[in-house]
Amino acid sequence: MFDYNAPLRDMQFILNELAGLEAIGKLPGCEEASPDLVAAILEEAGKFAAGVLAPINRQGDEQGCRLEDGRVIAPDGWQEAYTRFSESGWIGLSLPTEFGGQGLPKLVSTPVWEMWFSTNMAFTMLPQLNVGQAEALLIAATEEQKQTWLHKVVSGEWASTMNLTEPQAGSDLAATRSRAEPQADGSYKLFGQKIFISYGEHELTPNIVHLVLARLPDSPAGVKGLSLFIVPKYLVAADGSLGERNDVRCISIEHKMGIHGSPTCTLSYGDHGGAFGCLVGGANRGLETMFIMMNEARFGVGVQGAGLAERAYQFALAYARDRVQGRDAVTGEAGKPIIHHPDVKRMLLGMRARVMAMRALLYTAAGWFDFAHHGPDAAVADKYRRYVDLLMPVAKGWCTEIGNDVCDEAIQVFGGMGFVEETGIAQFFRDARIITIYEGTTGIQANDLIGRKILREGGATLTELIADMRASAGQLAEDGELASIGLDLAAQAETLEQTLAWVLANGKARMADVYAGAVPFLYLLGTVCGSWQLARAAQAARRRIAAGEGDAQYHNSLVELARFYMATVGPQAAAHAATVCGAGDALTRFDEAAF
Amino acid sequence: MFDYNAPLRDMQFILNELAGLEAIGKLPGCEEASPDLVAAILEEAGKFAAGVLAPINRQGDEQGCRLEDGRVIAPDGWQEAYTRFSESGWIGLSLPTEFGGQGLPKLVSTPVWEMWFSTNMAFTMLPQLNVGQAEALLIAATEEQKQTWLHKVVSGEWASTMNLTEPQAGSDLAATRSRAEPQADGSYKLFGQKIFISYGEHELTPNIVHLVLARLPDSPAGVKGLSLFIVPKYLVAADGSLGERNDVRCISIEHKMGIHGSPTCTLSYGDHGGAFGCLVGGANRGLETMFIMMNEARFGVGVQGAGLAERAYQFALAYARDRVQGRDAVTGEAGKPIIHHPDVKRMLLGMRARVMAMRALLYTAAGWFDFAHHGPDAAVADKYRRYVDLLMPVAKGWCTEIGNDVCDEAIQVFGGMGFVEETGIAQFFRDARIITIYEGTTGIQANDLIGRKILREGGATLTELIADMRASAGQLAEDGELASIGLDLAAQAETLEQTLAWVLANGKARMADVYAGAVPFLYLLGTVCGSWQLARAAQAARRRIAAGEGDAQYHNSLVELARFYMATVGPQAAAHAATVCGAGDALTRFDEAAF
Repeated sequence: MFDYNAPLRDMQFILNELAGLEAIGKLPGCEEASPDLVAAILEEAGKFAAGVLAPINRQGDEQGCRLEDGRVIAPDGWQEAYTRFSESGWIGLSLPTEFGGQGLPKLVSTPVWEMWFSTNMAFTMLPQLNVGQAEALLIAATEEQKQTWLHKVVSGEWASTMNLTEPQAGSDLAATRSRAEPQADGSYKLFGQKIFISYGEHELTPNIVHLVLARLPDSPAGVKGLSLFIVPKYLVAADGSLGERNDVRCISIEHKMGIHGSPTCTLSYGDHGGAFGCLVGGANRGLETMFIMMNEARFGVGVQGAGLAERAYQFALAYARDRVQGRDAVTGEAGKPIIHHPDVKRMLLGMRARVMAMRALLYTAAGWFDFAHHGPDAAVADKYRRYVDLLMPVAKGWCTEIGNDVCDEAIQVFGGMGFVEETGIAQFFRDARIITIYEGTTGIQANDLIGRKILREGGATLTELIADMRASAGQLAEDGELASIGLDLAAQAETLEQTLAWVLANGKARMADVYAGAVPFLYLLGTVCGSWQLARAAQAARRRIAAGEGDAQYHNSLVELARFYMATVGPQAAAHAATVCGAGDALTRFDEAAF
Repeated sequence: MFDYNAPLRDMQFILNELAGLEAIGKLPGCEEASPDLVAAILEEAGKFAAGVLAPINRQGDEQGCRLEDGRVIAPDGWQEAYTRFSESGWIGLSLPTEFGGQGLPKLVSTPVWEMWFSTNMAFTMLPQLNVGQAEALLIAATEEQKQTWLHKVVSGEWASTMNLTEPQAGSDLAATRSRAEPQADGSYKLFGQKIFISYGEHELTPNIVHLVLARLPDSPAGVKGLSLFIVPKYLVAADGSLGERNDVRCISIEHKMGIHGSPTCTLSYGDHGGAFGCLVGGANRGLETMFIMMNEARFGVGVQGAGLAERAYQFALAYARDRVQGRDAVTGEAGKPIIHHPDVKRMLLGMRARVMAMRALLYTAAGWFDFAHHGPDAAVADKYRRYVDLLMPVAKGWCTEIGNDVCDEAIQVFGGMGFVEETGIAQFFRDARIITIYEGTTGIQANDLIGRKILREGGATLTELIADMRASAGQLAEDGELASIGLDLAAQAETLEQTLAWVLANGKARMADVYAGAVPFLYLLGTVCGSWQLARAAQAARRRIAAGEGDAQYHNSLVELARFYMATVGPQAAAHAATVCGAGDALTRFDEAAF
């Protein structure tokens, strides 16, 4: 097991040079986010991640969780880590100060959460749920509900869950059957079974606040008849003290391939007369609110992709520097570590390039989010809000797929030792496999991208984004050293634009064909966004070199990184584009009976 | 858990239409392989795989193996299955009749082994070792050694292992330290530690025959000083009866991500005075012999890729036909199984296309192997021998990488249920992860391809292969229905040729750059070989349709399958080619200190 080194230099570079940290720190409401404070927070988070979360990650995997008489027992170390985590105020980092948070921009919290995911994803899913639930309550809850629940959710004194999935309702929430019966006192009684509930039961906190999607008696069919309810594990008295146990029980936990430290529960509501709940937001408006929480969670899962990939890359790099094997392909010299083999170096650089591309995309999107929420210029805010909406499925879908690819390649660097659990790298590979699935599979993300984010508005926002990419390419072309990167980016933007045109032209008449190309389109857009971000990084690095500022070796390496990405990942853009336009025809004609 | 359906129709199509089964059945020494006998064998194997091996696959994963006081305990069911397997004569299927085998062509044994791997890879690794060891002994052992060991290895009465890896000698066998001391009686005493020895210890057979790579006292350094030894677990008397336990012990077994049913042992030789061994082949010629065994094993690992992918595809298809979720993207209709969603259908067809491409490549290569060994025309035999040599790293490297991709996509079709162990699909994904690593990683295969198979002979054989691909493309172009497939194949062959030219032009002056592109080159060649084989399949299918023979729906589906592969996998050829030529430059310039 290798130590975790918080990648603070890379993070700082992206925050400052690409994502606009300085400008965001000047926005109204963001003034706390001074460069010094941000540096201190990242430093502290890095220490906490390395010192508290990383050391218990392996035992969480080995021990997993146990269900004993309805109680879920978390792995050793979870309780102490959670107490320290919540008492340090990490949960509220980006949440409002009025409920005990620190009110910092999303741009600041994003690298911090990346570090938690890098070091212990199974653990971090617990506090991550608090953040998503707080976001939902902030928008949908009444003032009284906020006072009752939000302080404790933001502090982490109580834990949170989100309850959507049922056996027959996975990606399709329209099939939800859980129901809520109104009571005379204005409360509700809930009945039904929810599956795949992360941290649905545990004893790490004195109470758990379940947010549950269910149907009211006379609600319409489908997703328009879903309402959202707070259902606490223990009832809460008016004075905030905990009362009796509510009618919700964990009846089983899943045996999963990874994230063993995170209990995945089946919860049964109302087996003994109905679980007390209170309605959040209007009747039949549950999905709307849940989507707020889900969007937060989707971005967070994208960050998981980058975080797991970063740690897997660190493992592979450390191993490749240490492991001596084989002879130099050119000189025949023996006794050198395997990082000297061109193929191993290729894998490592490919991992680093993709980690940086994901990180730059995620942080830039987080910056857009902050500009959209705090920016004084309405037109700019609107543009960035639309950029965030457009790219949310890419942040989730592409970063999770690439995150998996990087963890896979890390195993390959380890060779046979990668398949053996004791090196620890296999855990990252197993843990990562869930991230392309939960909070909406890659296919769901891609359909969202094509349908709601592109076709619905005739591709307007993506067209605007492509123009921004072209502008970056034009600037790069002016610097002789970067011209080839600029040309590559321009060519990819052209490919993207042509593919968008094909999607728009065929979106109605050949809808099935277009949806057959949805995932390849998501890959295409992610690939080009990665090129764009690394090209911007190269440009910023060259500016620093030209100004004689900072570490020239580091800045030069970022230029080379962009070049390498263009040579190795960039060519995928044209391949994905060809697949977008070509897959549907053969697919639609293929007779399902002939499978 | 879904039942296994032996894909006999697909297998028969490829055997008959693409791999030349009929012609091979007429070669001297292959006359036994009549179409009727082959059909009966495949039928029987399918039943055995589905009825005996598949049902114990899951328990093998769940129970794994235990080491108790030096004894390795295999999972429940292993003993019965092995006894039935060996008594049925499956091990000797392709081995010489004079040692108890059935002497059938490799083309016939290949689909049979595919079925074993599909249904229980962890189990099948045991008898697979016998085949490889038998091949090595047939070539290198003395007549007396053959009489002593081969009958029992071919029948499976005794088990086999291959002992190469040591802690400091993984991919690099030059670093081997195990040593053999000559004894007065002509035998040897062996000392050393071997790791990662599959089935290195167990009690499924009364004896285990270890083939061990070690150094003689005065041997040269490096791989040229390695010799090969038979070291039995129990000594064998002149009459064949078993004597005392030899000085070899299992000191630990690995805790692995997958293939839990296959014990991966650390073996210690000579802790109590030296393990008895006898030299096989000449002194210092061990690697030569081991390579025979390794080549057999490498092809077999490629077949594992196809076998695991086939089963994962079957699981995903069965689940997608059963699972009802979501609405039709075009009509909005509810209540349909997920196979109707374009993205799910895309994944399934992509899986099927790649499984068929792998299978066609592997069977065709097996056919070439038979022509090379039994063909009366020396020029033809020589050509096919060179084809087999050239494509062995592709059969291993590409089919294992694609096999992993297909298992990964199967999980995605299952969604959340794919991450849960109870559905069984996660096991295939975990089991598959070893196949790109053992018997030489993909990087090792790619270096072999570029160095020994291409640069050493100036690309002569690959140039010949490309000419064959072009000839196929030309024939396809003559059929209006297939013309677009032919054009795609021709374009890919052109891309391959240009990339080969780049490799040949830069192989000396920019050797590190060329090796940086080795894996992308292997992917390129695999992708184009897949296109070629599926194009040939489409052509053969069209011939049947035109002649009014066979199942037209099936044959039409093969034409569509080729089209779909061209549209979705085919575009990767150009991307890989660009990466081959572009990766090295940026990679070589990247300063390792800047990682």
